[in-house]
Amino acid sequence: MELFGGYVFLRILVIYYALKYCKNMPVYIEPRLLKGFRDFLPNAEIIRRNLTENIENTFRSFGFVPIDTPAIEYAEILLGKGGGETEKQIYRFKDNGDRDVALRFDLTVPFARYVALHRNELSFPFKRYHIGKVWRGENAQRGRYREFTQCDFDIIGSDSAAADFEILFLIRTVLLNLGLDVSIHVNHRGLFNRFLASISLSEKSADILRAVDKLSKTGEEETYKNLCELAGDTNAKKILDFINAKGSFTEVLNRIIELSGGTSPESQRLLSLRDFMLKACDSEDGKNTDPFILNPSITRGLDYYTGVVFETFLNELPDIGSICSGGRYDNLAGLYSKDKESISGVGSSVGLDRLLAALENLNKLPAANKCITAIACCDVEKSGDYQVLAQKLRLSGIPCEVFLEEDKQMVKQFISAEKKGMRYVIISGELQNDKITLRDLKARKNIELSFEDVIKRIK
Amino acid sequence: MELFGGYVFLRILVIYYALKYCKNMPVYIEPRLLKGFRDFLPNAEIIRRNLTENIENTFRSFGFVPIDTPAIEYAEILLGKGGGETEKQIYRFKDNGDRDVALRFDLTVPFARYVALHRNELSFPFKRYHIGKVWRGENAQRGRYREFTQCDFDIIGSDSAAADFEILFLIRTVLLNLGLDVSIHVNHRGLFNRFLASISLSEKSADILRAVDKLSKTGEEETYKNLCELAGDTNAKKILDFINAKGSFTEVLNRIIELSGGTSPESQRLLSLRDFMLKACDSEDGKNTDPFILNPSITRGLDYYTGVVFETFLNELPDIGSICSGGRYDNLAGLYSKDKESISGVGSSVGLDRLLAALENLNKLPAANKCITAIACCDVEKSGDYQVLAQKLRLSGIPCEVFLEEDKQMVKQFISAEKKGMRYVIISGELQNDKITLRDLKARKNIELSFEDVIKRIK
Repeated sequence: MELFGGYVFLRILVIYYALKYCKNMPVYIEPRLLKGFRDFLPNAEIIRRNLTENIENTFRSFGFVPIDTPAIEYAEILLGKGGGETEKQIYRFKDNGDRDVALRFDLTVPFARYVALHRNELSFPFKRYHIGKVWRGENAQRGRYREFTQCDFDIIGSDSAAADFEILFLIRTVLLNLGLDVSIHVNHRGLFNRFLASISLSEKSADILRAVDKLSKTGEEETYKNLCELAGDTNAKKILDFINAKGSFTEVLNRIIELSGGTSPESQRLLSLRDFMLKACDSEDGKNTDPFILNPSITRGLDYYTGVVFETFLNELPDIGSICSGGRYDNLAGLYSKDKESISGVGSSVGLDRLLAALENLNKLPAANKCITAIACCDVEKSGDYQVLAQKLRLSGIPCEVFLEEDKQMVKQFISAEKKGMRYVIISGELQNDKITLRDLKARKNIELSFEDVIKRIK
Repeated sequence: MELFGGYVFLRILVIYYALKYCKNMPVYIEPRLLKGFRDFLPNAEIIRRNLTENIENTFRSFGFVPIDTPAIEYAEILLGKGGGETEKQIYRFKDNGDRDVALRFDLTVPFARYVALHRNELSFPFKRYHIGKVWRGENAQRGRYREFTQCDFDIIGSDSAAADFEILFLIRTVLLNLGLDVSIHVNHRGLFNRFLASISLSEKSADILRAVDKLSKTGEEETYKNLCELAGDTNAKKILDFINAKGSFTEVLNRIIELSGGTSPESQRLLSLRDFMLKACDSEDGKNTDPFILNPSITRGLDYYTGVVFETFLNELPDIGSICSGGRYDNLAGLYSKDKESISGVGSSVGLDRLLAALENLNKLPAANKCITAIACCDVEKSGDYQVLAQKLRLSGIPCEVFLEEDKQMVKQFISAEKKGMRYVIISGELQNDKITLRDLKARKNIELSFEDVIKRIK
């Protein structure tokens, strides 16, 4: 009986502690990521940051300025006019105050809202860029990410051909500064519509532009079939004739002017652009090829474009698709503005993930800008001295890591430095007789140098 | 009758279009932000970026590397052990796949999960920094933001005093590089606990440390009252005696060694740190004051600290509170790891919003690094030539904006350049006889210079 009683007591005790434990303190939670989301390890993150820094520097050199907007906004604002795909993909939820909110799924809609809200605080023409994360519940199976970084740049408040040209020229400079040779395929939606009007197809313009936009994906045969359904056999052939115009910029321009019923403000715009392009590329003494191609088959799927549209291809890797696309639109902030005066603009977006993949493929990733020098830890008591020497190097512009764990076997410290991609290890972490012993991990030898010579060598 | 019929037809027509319009196309959506969220206008965004760039450069110069993690994770992971405040404040929702997810509310929990997941891909000691947005549904009335940027830096996988010191020295260097003189108040929780054990209060340690942590907010009287409740009158006085120890680092250290029952590994750690501090600050030839203060009243509220803890105050603006706090912890990734070997570390977090406010207050915001040169648009047809000249300046390291809208009244272009905070406007946007006419907006005069002299002048 006593034994039984003791057993009961033990059981109660075990249950009591088990309950307490389970309730207050999970023992183990499996570390895992949501599908479509990524961690960035240091090397990948350094590369990503170098890339955006490089791109930002080019934007800034053109006088473009950065902005930022919240990740979370009222769902009403982000959904705007709505639309099937967006509504299916957006992360939408009720916040703690029961507000209907969502995560931004692009940077265009927040920019429209931003311009409407801050119109009086901005000066126009307004040239801005915005690099930020966006979230889409895309089907992750298709190799798409649900969180990715977008990079948008626009000039708003100017209708001028100079603005169209600046965006095109900026795209080219951004990519040239990354060591990439590009072809920018340009077209004018207005001119395309003029041509469609001349064959009485204005009303079907949106559908036809969308069908043509898919040309590069689906091929000519499929496009022809679609166009036949939309516009009949004869017109489909005429449209193919229009979008297939080939030759130099001027030859193609002359051909599509002819097909669209003679010169027009739209053809005039393309002519001005051509003029600017020639000037800008001529001045480079043939160092770089003229990147501008007039391609009447470029239409862009999105409805809001009204003028010039463009896509950008890498000459060394065209199959990866357009890495920078955009165009001119008429009324950016209309939906969020009571003001009758509309704000038109021209803008573009770089696909950073695609660009990174291309740079990696071409072995042109921007140099990793890493810390390549370490001070070995021979005596942990001397960590103060090590920091003193390291700080001197840092002040001379040389990043320097101090190793924190003592290891008398110098080779182990060399190995961990090599694993981090370093080149130099300072062995004597103090100045002795004004000399420093430096290990060159690549040359696999030790050198004794003065502080000044260490600086010179590492730089 | 015919009139009436026509009227009915008109009514139907109006209703039909009104319905169609309302359904498909909202006419106007009020542009507004959620409470606690912010847009960043260009000037504010440039300042923010300069600040983080400056801080990042210091991290990188110490060999710290950046990482990134997703904004969205499984709620289970982010909530971890749970806890009242976190659960109330976290943005938690069901995603489109009905998964229970949440937005990260700090960078510590994702880092713990990251280390558990990538343990084998990292090399230890691992020195990382992470700058990223976090979201908390805080009461926005208190002037808190619901979206803000955190900046964390840690060394994990080293128990060494050298690691503690490096974090302290890094904090000091980060802030010195921003032109800020600081005092870093350091304490050791283990030593505090040793003292509590000596007066038989080990079991109430967590509550007492939390009560002491509030000292600077609530004042000594209130703290005394709280301590009396927790530990009785006599002990409360002893605790106040301990936390009020004043004097030089060494004097305070001797006093708290005495109060905690003699030397111990913990007092030894503080002694090593002091040794490193003296070396590092001595070497600066008295240029900067020794920033390290041993302050036994610093305890940090959070439970997970086990060793050194610290807070950082600006000497010119101490009342703004600690702008960089942290400490040593024992087992970072334990909750997400089946591995028995725990990873200890030491780390800290900079409050960027508070730091920005302080820099603004002290008129020490990092220089805005703006584009200060524009090319006026006298003839929009010459936009190609303007870009040619601008590109030459950009290649010489001078950011240059091209104005896009023609205005014969040069003064209007000067005004818009001034509004943008620019200094120079190039009036003749082409090289004529190799001369350029430059308007110095500050000096209010035009100067004719060669291209080379323009570069020199602007630089």
